Amino acid sequence: MLISVGIIGATGHTGEVLIELLLRHPNVKISHLYNSGKSSIGPQVISDVFPKFKNRLDLVCKKPDWVEIKKDCDLIFLALPHTVSMQFVPRLLSLGKKVIDLSADYRFSNVSVYEKFYKIAHEDKGNLKGAVYGLPELNRAKIKTASLLANPGCYATCAILSLAPLLALNLVDPDDIIIDAKSGVSGAGKKLENEYLFSEIQGDFRAYKVNAHQHAPEINQFLSGLSGKKVQVTFVPHLLPIERGILVTAYLKKASGASLKAKNLMELYKKFYKTEPFIRIKPEGVFPRIKDVAKTNFCDIGIKDFGRKIIVIGVIDNLLKGASSQAIQNMNIMYKLPENSGLI
Amino acid sequence: MLISVGIIGATGHTGEVLIELLLRHPNVKISHLYNSGKSSIGPQVISDVFPKFKNRLDLVCKKPDWVEIKKDCDLIFLALPHTVSMQFVPRLLSLGKKVIDLSADYRFSNVSVYEKFYKIAHEDKGNLKGAVYGLPELNRAKIKTASLLANPGCYATCAILSLAPLLALNLVDPDDIIIDAKSGVSGAGKKLENEYLFSEIQGDFRAYKVNAHQHAPEINQFLSGLSGKKVQVTFVPHLLPIERGILVTAYLKKASGASLKAKNLMELYKKFYKTEPFIRIKPEGVFPRIKDVAKTNFCDIGIKDFGRKIIVIGVIDNLLKGASSQAIQNMNIMYKLPENSGLI
Amino acid sequence: MLISVGIIGATGHTGEVLIELLLRHPNVKISHLYNSGKSSIGPQVISDVFPKFKNRLDLVCKKPDWVEIKKDCDLIFLALPHTVSMQFVPRLLSLGKKVIDLSADYRFSNVSVYEKFYKIAHEDKGNLKGAVYGLPELNRAKIKTASLLANPGCYATCAILSLAPLLALNLVDPDDIIIDAKSGVSGAGKKLENEYLFSEIQGDFRAYKVNAHQHAPEINQFLSGLSGKKVQVTFVPHLLPIERGILVTAYLKKASGASLKAKNLMELYKKFYKTEPFIRIKPEGVFPRIKDVAKTNFCDIGIKDFGRKIIVIGVIDNLLKGASSQAIQNMNIMYKLPENSGLI
Amino acid sequence: MLISVGIIGATGHTGEVLIELLLRHPNVKISHLYNSGKSSIGPQVISDVFPKFKNRLDLVCKKPDWVEIKKDCDLIFLALPHTVSMQFVPRLLSLGKKVIDLSADYRFSNVSVYEKFYKIAHEDKGNLKGAVYGLPELNRAKIKTASLLANPGCYATCAILSLAPLLALNLVDPDDIIIDAKSGVSGAGKKLENEYLFSEIQGDFRAYKVNAHQHAPEINQFLSGLSGKKVQVTFVPHLLPIERGILVTAYLKKASGASLKAKNLMELYKKFYKTEPFIRIKPEGVFPRIKDVAKTNFCDIGIKDFGRKIIVIGVIDNLLKGASSQAIQNMNIMYKLPENSGLI
Repeated sequence: MLISVGIIGATGHTGEVLIELLLRHPNVKISHLYNSGKSSIGPQVISDVFPKFKNRLDLVCKKPDWVEIKKDCDLIFLALPHTVSMQFVPRLLSLGKKVIDLSADYRFSNVSVYEKFYKIAHEDKGNLKGAVYGLPELNRAKIKTASLLANPGCYATCAILSLAPLLALNLVDPDDIIIDAKSGVSGAGKKLENEYLFSEIQGDFRAYKVNAHQHAPEINQFLSGLSGKKVQVTFVPHLLPIERGILVTAYLKKASGASLKAKNLMELYKKFYKTEPFIRIKPEGVFPRIKDVAKTNFCDIGIKDFGRKIIVIGVIDNLLKGASSQAIQNMNIMYKLPENSGLI
Repeated sequence: MLISVGIIGATGHTGEVLIELLLRHPNVKISHLYNSGKSSIGPQVISDVFPKFKNRLDLVCKKPDWVEIKKDCDLIFLALPHTVSMQFVPRLLSLGKKVIDLSADYRFSNVSVYEKFYKIAHEDKGNLKGAVYGLPELNRAKIKTASLLANPGCYATCAILSLAPLLALNLVDPDDIIIDAKSGVSGAGKKLENEYLFSEIQGDFRAYKVNAHQHAPEINQFLSGLSGKKVQVTFVPHLLPIERGILVTAYLKKASGASLKAKNLMELYKKFYKTEPFIRIKPEGVFPRIKDVAKTNFCDIGIKDFGRKIIVIGVIDNLLKGASSQAIQNMNIMYKLPENSGLI
Repeated sequence: MLISVGIIGATGHTGEVLIELLLRHPNVKISHLYNSGKSSIGPQVISDVFPKFKNRLDLVCKKPDWVEIKKDCDLIFLALPHTVSMQFVPRLLSLGKKVIDLSADYRFSNVSVYEKFYKIAHEDKGNLKGAVYGLPELNRAKIKTASLLANPGCYATCAILSLAPLLALNLVDPDDIIIDAKSGVSGAGKKLENEYLFSEIQGDFRAYKVNAHQHAPEINQFLSGLSGKKVQVTFVPHLLPIERGILVTAYLKKASGASLKAKNLMELYKKFYKTEPFIRIKPEGVFPRIKDVAKTNFCDIGIKDFGRKIIVIGVIDNLLKGASSQAIQNMNIMYKLPENSGLI
Repeated sequence: MLISVGIIGATGHTGEVLIELLLRHPNVKISHLYNSGKSSIGPQVISDVFPKFKNRLDLVCKKPDWVEIKKDCDLIFLALPHTVSMQFVPRLLSLGKKVIDLSADYRFSNVSVYEKFYKIAHEDKGNLKGAVYGLPELNRAKIKTASLLANPGCYATCAILSLAPLLALNLVDPDDIIIDAKSGVSGAGKKLENEYLFSEIQGDFRAYKVNAHQHAPEINQFLSGLSGKKVQVTFVPHLLPIERGILVTAYLKKASGASLKAKNLMELYKKFYKTEPFIRIKPEGVFPRIKDVAKTNFCDIGIKDFGRKIIVIGVIDNLLKGASSQAIQNMNIMYKLPENSGLI
């Protein structure tokens, strides 16, 4: 099988990483690259934007061309900023194209949560219901038949995968979950702002959006669905002086009545994720580090049981499992390819 | 006044930083530099060990010489590994010298806690009682008359200063305190171990000693004393890919009955630390970053009130306020000098 | 075709990168992993050494087992320290195995140069003559039929590829070539030495082995062969605070009588490397950077003509084109596979 | 003595570092801070711009106020972008103020060189002649009586100090000098450009302005004056992924007839800089590294003699000896203070 793929938003961080991965995918042909069509930048050879693609992919990235898209593309990846994707989705779906959206535009079933956190009115409420949340380990059945796939946020992916077994089995207090998260700089995309200059990041570390980050409601929505109870996490993200990687340290309190031992917890996680190719549970007393998952689609998790409290530490590569490689994992599922195609 | 100072353990990280600071101190003369006398390394010119001191300090660092110490030194800084300091302290005190110990050997009033966490029998229990814990902001009165000063641990300094106002006033549950701490690599001293190689640290981030770090009991001891209640923190340290700096993110639950508003909390902190030259409270909604305190003796603190929970974020330079400059602040107090002498 | 491959020296830097690349190669099966057999370390599951390989490759790395090698391996990669490879090569060749040696042991036709720079007597002079220097762009014909391939040094690869067109055509003074080279830390392998600690590398930059590096004679040997004249370069390597990548800045003087214009030089390079899939010549006035080639097998080159002088800047990834991916490129040639198999 | 100082351009990199150093200077009072008056930014408390100055210096930085300047300031530091300084100098001099200009505006005696490299007409040619080039080690006599001091460029400082002894004594070919220079990012000031984002710098290394940097003519002018011959260096700067520090590697050819031995060279340098407090010559076979001079006013130099060629390596901190601390060294000389006041 050869899937003909177009990318809208090819010149951003996730677009760049998508191209890199898709070039290696045995069942994909990158047919067209588009920018958002919003800026005044004209057509650009992608290898002029990213010289590393010279001699590997020398396509022109230009304004979206609907004739081409209709004719040539089976699947479109939207690697666009939040609030821009929803301007493309209705037309793409009406052309019968499959869409994998890496933005937040279709992640929320409750539109008011989206509008509150992204501070904009949703312009395509009609397609929200049909969108499938693309977390393969916890939503694979629906992904198989999705036309519009909402690829999860990076923090949300790492936090949800780290906590899912405990919430699914109602072993912890859903009201007292603390997530102390740390991310590399690429999580912020390619913003030209003073705070992302080398001289500001190098040698520094800081919290930001303290308990006010837009991934918290995404985590709450999914974990609430999983546990059947209202989950409201305390979520504090921090900015690491590295390019890629997320580590979350979660502190949970055991639900009253739950009797758990350390060994049981590890076994429980291993059983929960038994057949998952991209989840790895660390042995007793060992915790994951970012280096172990950098440049991979893996999520590694370590767990420790301390009397009344449980500490869970999870890591992913924010640009891969937290964005582009997870999008490809979703594509593989949608097209019934082996789930690790192109992701080895 | 000119204080004649000797340093035992001059070739380690804290020794190096002590020298750098003392060279600038208007009331200090560095008279002698010593190594621990334990290794087979012979005498070394300190500027051969640290070429940056060439033409600034070209003293020889050698085995401790008790005749010299007796004759020349008013004050001895012990910049030694834990468990080594206690082999020097009795003799130094018997010679009537003032001692500032940067190791953990005299930080614990309860010797069994020390012996459990440092895994060694204490060899100088007699002097434990007389030792003064050198956290100026919370123990200044005793420091003024100390002969043996136990300089606090880096994580402990940052965590205690960040939480003291809440504990002193019993505003939070002493049983449910989570401290998620992050430190630069210099916190580990100069260990030649694989895990501290550039290729292991650069681009990585990981937790270590998860809820098993030796600074947790130090925090517990001090905060328990302050609050009059048994405090037992959950403490998870992480290793940042930077050289210096600590940031702690603390999550606390309000004590039942405590009625606090955001504004009150900020005011409360400002009032608590009103006269402190080295504590800075951030304005509402602003949190401190490591860059703000790097290479200084400051501790910056930001606080946020979230309904039932309080989040406090504090930062210090682990080698300065967390070690060497705090030692000098203590010296200034002991010798009745302006507290910021040599620390501007 | 499926090549059954063994790696001796699998736990070093180049071994690690070789595994990573070979896992993705469509025509390779990694059959066995061995250590050098020299140390007292027993068998180790490779994914315990490198947790990132968990669930991807869980082979045991153990002492070389000649029965297995004879039976199972078509090709052996030697990812060993210099002076260790030559202890394996004779027996491997006598078993009829193909060998790609990533060390320096078989790079020199003149054994006295080797012995001078590596400070050890060569123990397998007999096989030196038959060894083929594995720089595909300049030695492809011989590589096709090689049994024993000497994979070039990282600096040598970058310097030779950057200068070859000028030397091959005798356009520059062979006596007055200055190569100012800069490399990331991984070039030094995994040495546990103080100078490679994070705190020593981060924020620093320094020269080392000033005009005394062992890659200089490798460059001299090859460029002399290419030009037919005695080339003796001035070579100063420097250590960059990054993990991977080499950049060389070369300063050359035009040979008297050579008449060249800027445009001609660029054209000359493009023509010289016209059919090379992994060499990219930058446009006029543009120079390559390490980011463009990191994690790839490419060598990017920029050239500028300044009156009497020529400046050439070349970059590679030292662990890839400078070591492991070049080894795979050589394997592809030896086995008549497409030269970029597994290297996309 | 207490010098009352004003800084115009206080919010840039060099302004920030100037403030930091002047706060520690025993003979300086920082009276006023000004911005360039060009932007629409209103008055700012300097500790809001740089939170690290909170409680240390809380002056307001505002548009230049000539009444204040006239009344309060003895000396003005201009920490402004090139081409802006010359708009302030005439008026400051006419008020009888001493001026230390950290920009390039008054470094060139030949105005056409300035105009060519800075691409702007010089608006204050009248004061060019009276300006003194502020390289204390080589121009101290004139600095003592200067009213208008042109503080040297960072690369120029490092290159000139590294090469001066050889040029002053005419030991090398003035026509064949290659300077391969590497600088940390702060050398570029605080430009908000894509190329200075963390994600662009981290893990990268590249050349820029290849043989076209504006510090080359500054080096040529000074070394020509020193040697009495026309010096024209080949100068290639590179961008290091660190915040501060410059290292230059210079390659020189011995002048015909000059008979030099390695030992002689070292002795020659030591003699040349014998009484200089901030120049340190490394021992035979040892080369300086950036860490040795970071955060200091030192310039460390290593030399090696290789037959016909000489290699010289010099390092400075670009923000200190290459800018702000050198400005203070110049101030000390102008005010007859000990040359290392405030620079220990």
